[in-house]
Amino acid sequence: MLRKAEIIAVGTELLTPHRLDTNSLAITERLNDIGIDVRTKAVVGDDRGDLQALFVQALERADLIVLTGGLGPTDDDLTREVVADVLQLPLEEDPSIANRIRGRFERRGLRMPDINRRQAMVPRGAKVLDNPNGTAPGLILERGDKLVVLLPGPPREMKPMLEIALRHHLEPRSGGVKLLRRILRVTGRTESHVEEVAQPVYGRWSRGPDAISTTILASPGQIELHLTTLSDDVTAASARLERAVRELMDVLGADVFSVDGRTLEQVVGALLRDRHIRLALAESCTGGLTTSRLTDVPGSSDYVERGIVCYSNRSKVELLGVPATLIETHGAVSEEVALEMARGIRDRAGVDMGVAITGIAGPGGGREEKPVGTVFVAAVRTGEPVVRRFRFPGSRDMIKSQAAQAALDLVRRTLRSEK
Amino acid sequence: MLRKAEIIAVGTELLTPHRLDTNSLAITERLNDIGIDVRTKAVVGDDRGDLQALFVQALERADLIVLTGGLGPTDDDLTREVVADVLQLPLEEDPSIANRIRGRFERRGLRMPDINRRQAMVPRGAKVLDNPNGTAPGLILERGDKLVVLLPGPPREMKPMLEIALRHHLEPRSGGVKLLRRILRVTGRTESHVEEVAQPVYGRWSRGPDAISTTILASPGQIELHLTTLSDDVTAASARLERAVRELMDVLGADVFSVDGRTLEQVVGALLRDRHIRLALAESCTGGLTTSRLTDVPGSSDYVERGIVCYSNRSKVELLGVPATLIETHGAVSEEVALEMARGIRDRAGVDMGVAITGIAGPGGGREEKPVGTVFVAAVRTGEPVVRRFRFPGSRDMIKSQAAQAALDLVRRTLRSEK
Repeated sequence: MLRKAEIIAVGTELLTPHRLDTNSLAITERLNDIGIDVRTKAVVGDDRGDLQALFVQALERADLIVLTGGLGPTDDDLTREVVADVLQLPLEEDPSIANRIRGRFERRGLRMPDINRRQAMVPRGAKVLDNPNGTAPGLILERGDKLVVLLPGPPREMKPMLEIALRHHLEPRSGGVKLLRRILRVTGRTESHVEEVAQPVYGRWSRGPDAISTTILASPGQIELHLTTLSDDVTAASARLERAVRELMDVLGADVFSVDGRTLEQVVGALLRDRHIRLALAESCTGGLTTSRLTDVPGSSDYVERGIVCYSNRSKVELLGVPATLIETHGAVSEEVALEMARGIRDRAGVDMGVAITGIAGPGGGREEKPVGTVFVAAVRTGEPVVRRFRFPGSRDMIKSQAAQAALDLVRRTLRSEK
Repeated sequence: MLRKAEIIAVGTELLTPHRLDTNSLAITERLNDIGIDVRTKAVVGDDRGDLQALFVQALERADLIVLTGGLGPTDDDLTREVVADVLQLPLEEDPSIANRIRGRFERRGLRMPDINRRQAMVPRGAKVLDNPNGTAPGLILERGDKLVVLLPGPPREMKPMLEIALRHHLEPRSGGVKLLRRILRVTGRTESHVEEVAQPVYGRWSRGPDAISTTILASPGQIELHLTTLSDDVTAASARLERAVRELMDVLGADVFSVDGRTLEQVVGALLRDRHIRLALAESCTGGLTTSRLTDVPGSSDYVERGIVCYSNRSKVELLGVPATLIETHGAVSEEVALEMARGIRDRAGVDMGVAITGIAGPGGGREEKPVGTVFVAAVRTGEPVVRRFRFPGSRDMIKSQAAQAALDLVRRTLRSEK
């Protein structure tokens, strides 16, 4: 049974300061899904000795070794040869692979270069995984109880092949265990404030055969709780996870905005669509980021009417009707101006809801009573206008992204409270 | 002399589907800077056996082993112990470390928990690296000609310590070689079109003792050429790189927008500022992304007057004065409307330059004559108005980001041509 995996990414470019092996994340996720743990991951260059040493050691430790990259047609591409060498299997040309590669070239009116025949060389006994998106086929080899999987490096070639390898070769040998996963997304409190109320809850599930493990991932303005559980009984495990999600929602309340993988802009978009509400936005310090995020969602033109980036005071006066005296008295970054901006954009756009953001993104422009990171967010709908003051930490782009997140969240909370 | 390095990142959380070891990028860059190659990188969980096996193998292959993480005070933190064990060095409490950690706690009015004394345990003979940003000290150990460096996992603790290790311990043993680096950023042509004209140029420098290596990194709408060269004579190497940059600029022409690390929005911002030009933008399919990128640059309020996200046709008419009949005749996504949007925003904002973007970001809304990815970008200044038609590949967000890039680039080219 497959239990312990190691992943080896091959390619000198992955050892430069600018490239990360992200394939291993996708592979880890899908292996975890069928109850296989990843014990170590390694990156090695296009070097025969280094690759051989790593592969030999991996074979000693793991039940499953997944190698990505190094399956191309050039001299640099060594994965096939090194694996065959270590497993002491001769490489033999597979005519059907050669034909398929030749066909790919011919369909584009090209002759197959001779070097591509290298990609048709297969260690004796290997199972071949077709590559619909490229020339390099994948390979699966057995060595006693152990399995070795060779996948190409480009993610769009690797990913579909990984699915085939999982379904036909790995899942049948994984013992029937499945990993189920739920993600709660939270906004409006810090990581430690989430932890404080969530830990006493998830701490209770963390042991025993039905254990649920919880991981907290924090990014500016957003906390994710990942709940996972392993089980051979999917129905029971789903019910268990559902109960866990409910318990966490009870303690985290309205700060949970999504339990189904949706982003905040998708949640807000669905609320606006369901309620036939059209929105317009007036952004100052966020510079259009909030409107851009809302319009990342396909079909958002149904509910986003317009946005104004009123970066100058003049544009706040001209486009939103904010009285110049109000800006002089309270400053452009103030509760009063935020509210007037929200009112102005709603009325002038003739929509149901206006949202406004004004703040100091820095690094300059801070003062003692309004330091860098001070942001006012306002929403005006039918009821009482709402305005909130924040003080966000971090760099200019972090302040922008937290402010946009806060503005989207204010729309969500306003609509929720209307029910 | 230190030549070959291996990096081992320790921590079970780095083996989940959601976490990448990014420390290794910063470490690779700084090691490369002093002529040390990274041969392999590995990630291992908080497991004594796995860590020990990897460390033993790394000691056999490399001159320098850098381990990150696993230096905390809890039972999970095994790096110190495993390294001491493999090198057969006893762990001894260093009273000065214990005092420093105790002081950190006392300054916050807290008593040092007993478990933190583990962080004061040091393998005999180790040199200690202070940690100004946390409790875990770093350690440096010698084993014959080889060096072992232990750094904490959190990047803000790791990075300053890495600098100290480099200056005092690694650089003196790196043979005086330095890596110099230049980055050319290009927009307006595809990766293969860059390669086509650049390869014959950089191919000439790629061999010999004065070799310059070139790496091409592509992202939507932007290609980077990274040139690096190793030398013990910094002046000569700088001159060599400068000549190489010039040669590439000769063949790539105005498509090169930056040779000094600046982003496109920084380059455009500097042009606007130098020429005292104020800008206003009208964005449709990009939803505010272009204005948001421009305002990522500190001080951009000096030249960005306003932006309008005219997502609805009504807002194009009301806010920009685009004739409704023009939209009916040519469609909202057309050369004619793009030009009118640019004129409208310039005149109504009373600024020197107007920029407009209209297109189909998809996934819906495409037609045969204007498929998804069709984008018109217009710029209106004092001279002849300019409009360009693009057809961008990819998903909705990729189309948005390429369109924003094209709009910024049109501003750059317009201003450049004015000299």
